[in-house]
Amino acid sequence: METYNFSIKTDKRTELIDITKIIDDFIFKSPDTAGLCLIYSPHTTTGIIINEAYDPDVAFDINIFLNNLVPKNNNYRHSEGNSDAHIKAAIIGNSRMISYFDNKLNLGRWEGIFLCEFDGPRQRNINLLLI
Amino acid sequence: METYNFSIKTDKRTELIDITKIIDDFIFKSPDTAGLCLIYSPHTTTGIIINEAYDPDVAFDINIFLNNLVPKNNNYRHSEGNSDAHIKAAIIGNSRMISYFDNKLNLGRWEGIFLCEFDGPRQRNINLLLI
Amino acid sequence: METYNFSIKTDKRTELIDITKIIDDFIFKSPDTAGLCLIYSPHTTTGIIINEAYDPDVAFDINIFLNNLVPKNNNYRHSEGNSDAHIKAAIIGNSRMISYFDNKLNLGRWEGIFLCEFDGPRQRNINLLLI
Repeated sequence: METYNFSIKTDKRTELIDITKIIDDFIFKSPDTAGLCLIYSPHTTTGIIINEAYDPDVAFDINIFLNNLVPKNNNYRHSEGNSDAHIKAAIIGNSRMISYFDNKLNLGRWEGIFLCEFDGPRQRNINLLLI
Repeated sequence: METYNFSIKTDKRTELIDITKIIDDFIFKSPDTAGLCLIYSPHTTTGIIINEAYDPDVAFDINIFLNNLVPKNNNYRHSEGNSDAHIKAAIIGNSRMISYFDNKLNLGRWEGIFLCEFDGPRQRNINLLLI
Repeated sequence: METYNFSIKTDKRTELIDITKIIDDFIFKSPDTAGLCLIYSPHTTTGIIINEAYDPDVAFDINIFLNNLVPKNNNYRHSEGNSDAHIKAAIIGNSRMISYFDNKLNLGRWEGIFLCEFDGPRQRNINLLLI
């Protein structure tokens, strides 16, 4: 079992950031050449998805759709004013699992891994667990 | 590999219940001190999320948002009258993964683990698998 | 660690297809009798869910709800015309985890595993990783 952590500076209140290359590099250097990788965000206002990384318009469309689906102001009870971000995080999920072989992520042809920022800009940490 | 099961009595048709303490206790006593933990609900009208546990208003807002997003009555085909609960379960997901070290869940500072009841009140079972 | 792959021909633009039996058969023949199974779709316009398999109307209702939630045309930027499918895949997730014991999936009484096709009809591949 191996664990790695890295951090990302986000720039906007909401955006999807391609973190595939960073994770690729950890997997490439891993002493265990094959296994399962948990990509985990320990924050409550972010999500992790695996989706198309080839055309950045896909991530753009996903982000805009979620902004329209979950309004920022909506008579929420939580007093910090970011309930929309918590709701998006619950819907999207704060982790994804993927396998790797020969020190390579087992991604589909068009797939990449994204951090979904729902309440930025902030410094965010991502935890990887390889098993 | 270890497996544990516990049950929860829910009180309302829809609510989010913090189950972090129960899972913490299993992890604390686990003979394997580090690994991956699958938190799995074997029901089709519940979900599992990891989100803010500090302010209970966050769980309240998530539950109300989902109730508004997925109406109880909507010309559904399924004759049992709980399609809304199945739909929410599909969107939220029936499991989450988390790592643990030194017999402690690797949760972020504000994170807790919640059972999402979408068709209660009922007795619900949660399965833990540690690997 | 074992890996298996199988492919499914989908028939419609959007539908949920019960793939429980196929996965059951791989688990039944697995040399490792117990562990974790990752059910992973390497595509960016599909999802995997675990939900009720007993009454097919449940899968029908989930599919229709998602079609209404995420319109096919919505001033999306992505020029291929299938942003709705990418958005659904992000919301539902492209994988699920489940445990197995004695060469049997640890499914709840009413649960089955479904491939969610959001941009068919197509030939789709599913990857299983057993650990």
